[in-house]
Parts: sequence; C-alpha cells; structure tokens
Amino acid sequence: MQHTKDRRQRRDDYHHGDLSRALLSAGRTLLEEGGPSALNLREIARRVGVSAPSAYHHFPNLEAIAVAIAAQGFAQMTELLEAAPTNERGKLTPAGEAYIAFARANPGLYRLMFGDGFHTASDANSELRAMRQRAYQVVAESLRKRLPARQVPVAALYLWSLVHGLALLLIDGQLDADASPTATIQNVLRMAGTGLPTSG
Amino acid sequence: MQHTKDRRQRRDDYHHGDLSRALLSAGRTLLEEGGPSALNLREIARRVGVSAPSAYHHFPNLEAIAVAIAAQGFAQMTELLEAAPTNERGKLTPAGEAYIAFARANPGLYRLMFGDGFHTASDANSELRAMRQRAYQVVAESLRKRLPARQVPVAALYLWSLVHGLALLLIDGQLDADASPTATIQNVLRMAGTGLPTSG
Repeated sequence: MQHTKDRRQRRDDYHHGDLSRALLSAGRTLLEEGGPSALNLREIARRVGVSAPSAYHHFPNLEAIAVAIAAQGFAQMTELLEAAPTNERGKLTPAGEAYIAFARANPGLYRLMFGDGFHTASDANSELRAMRQRAYQVVAESLRKRLPARQVPVAALYLWSLVHGLALLLIDGQLDADASPTATIQNVLRMAGTGLPTSG
Repeated sequence: MQHTKDRRQRRDDYHHGDLSRALLSAGRTLLEEGGPSALNLREIARRVGVSAPSAYHHFPNLEAIAVAIAAQGFAQMTELLEAAPTNERGKLTPAGEAYIAFARANPGLYRLMFGDGFHTASDANSELRAMRQRAYQVVAESLRKRLPARQVPVAALYLWSLVHGLALLLIDGQLDADASPTATIQNVLRMAGTGLPTSG
C-alpha cells in the first residue's frame, strides 16, 4: 500500500485547481495518443501520479472529463478563429485555414469535440452539441458583417460543412500522400469562394 | 443449460451464409440504436438467438463485424451514388443529395464507415480508410467527365468535404430545429456550384 500512500501524498502536493489542470492535460495527451476511445480516467490518474479516487473527486466519470477537455478545445478554437485576420478582400480564408490547422494539430481533441465515441443520447453528447452550436455562431457572426441576414444561415452552414468535412478527411489520412496538405487546403478553401469550376 | 442448447439448435437452423447475414443485420440495428460505441458481438449473438461462440465462428472479434458492416454500407452508398441522375446541366446535385440522404437514413452506419469509435491505429481503421478511398474515386470519376484532369483532385476533395461535413452536422443534430432539412441541403449544395455569395 506504499504505492497508494505515495499517490495520496502527491495529491496533497497539488494546489487547488492545479490537479484539475494536470488531469485535463494528461487527458489531452492520452487523446492524441489513441483517439477518444483511449480516454480512461484511471490511466489519466496514473499518469498524473494520483489515486483514481483523487481524480474522481474532480471528474466523477469519464464523460465529465471528456466534456471539460472538449470545452477547453472549443475555447481555444474560438480564440484562434477570432484572431484570424480578415484578408484585404474580406475573405474568410484565413479563418478557414486556422480552423483546419487547429484540427490537424489536435486530431484526437477535434474528434472528441464532435462527439466521436460518445453514445448518441448521452448527456456529454448534448453538452458537446451546445458547444458546437456556440462555435457555429462565431462563423455566422462574421458572415453577418458581409452578407444580407437572409443569406447568412445557408452560407454559414456551407462554410462550416466544408471546413468540418475537410478537417476530418485530412486527420483521417484520406488525402493523397503525394499532395501538399497546405496547398491543397488553400485550393479547396479558394473554391469555397468561387464554387465548383464548370469547365476548363 | 437448456438455454445454451436452444441456441446451438438455432445455429443449426441457419443455412450457410444466412447466420452471417443475420448477424450483420442485427449489428446494423444495434448501430442505429446506439451508434458505433454500442456495437457488441455478444449482444448481436443474443439478438440473433445464437451462442457467442457461434457468432465468433463468423466474426472473430468486434472489429471484424464492424468492417463487414461498413463494407455493406460502402457498397450500398456507391450503388446509390451511381444511380443518382445527372441533371440536365450535368450538375452533381442529385449525387450530393443521395449521399446525404444515405447518411441521414443510416447515421450509426455512416459514423462507423468513417471510423468513429475505432482506435486510430487499428487494422479495422486502415480497412475503413481503404474503402473510403474507393468511394472517393467514384466522385473523382464523375468529375473527370466534366473537368480537365488537373482540376479534378481539388474539386473532388471540395465536394467530398462539403457533403461529408454537412452529413455529419445534420446527423449530429446541429441544424436549426425550425429549418427544413431538405430545403437547407438543396441550398447548401447549390452554393457548392456558385461559391459563397460576395454581397447582397
């Protein structure tokens, strides 16, 4: 039981809030190593060096920590989107690039944010859905500045579908291995502005 | 043990191939009830009324039946895409609508086909990726008929990203509750042809 005692000791070393942050950080590492299905509260506790009950004290179950990690992800993504420059012609390409760069840098987190691995009817899934809805409002908001109100819903859904689908296909490794991701992303995002070419 | 004997008996009632089909069908039902994370080989066996070993005889593990179900899904989706009419101006809108209708009618299956719930590095995930690559070739093939070869890769990725992202946002329940899905889908797909409006 020396082992357990060490862990208790370790728990006391954390200031209030620090253990919570350490657990979230270990969870994100685990997520990037093996995707949402690899998230495991006992393994997170083990990595932080505390007992499972100490971890459960902060996050009563796996869904609770998953939701907290996803909330961090949405906050970070929103910040990046808001910081993306609007280029000279008011194009949203930089925001699209920022969105996809975020997903590519954090593929496990991005999948989690979109509910991968969660039971469709779970509370965690409803919470994630509400967070996604708020992220969508950021896109809609920036479109409101350049389009008449009646065009905003379809345009926002069009852009969001495009970057969401592209991000997932990229992190799933669906792109031709010989293509340069950066150039491909820029070309696809450019097509968001022009539409599908109709001929040569 | 009467129970077990009944199950053995039941297994003998299946002609070769029929049990396999029955297991796949029960798997699909389970998938639509609870998403990919609800797939469970013992539960599938129970529903078909055979013992777990009888099920394992056909599918050695959960990944094996998941891959077989996904293969069915890709075959069905490819058939629907190939059957979608090309409209008078050679537009791909009907194929886009068919793609999204398939995802909406089979949300659990569609998520599974895109690897939801699978460990990123699993063999099942690699097999699913290869199947997705073949589905992508169907899109690329139909674009080759209307665009110069050099424009095909970006155009195919653009269209696939759009329908994939839109399908997922729809089955995740991200659409405004008051919007008509059919009209919204048509409007978003129309924008695939025209690009984002630049002003009123």
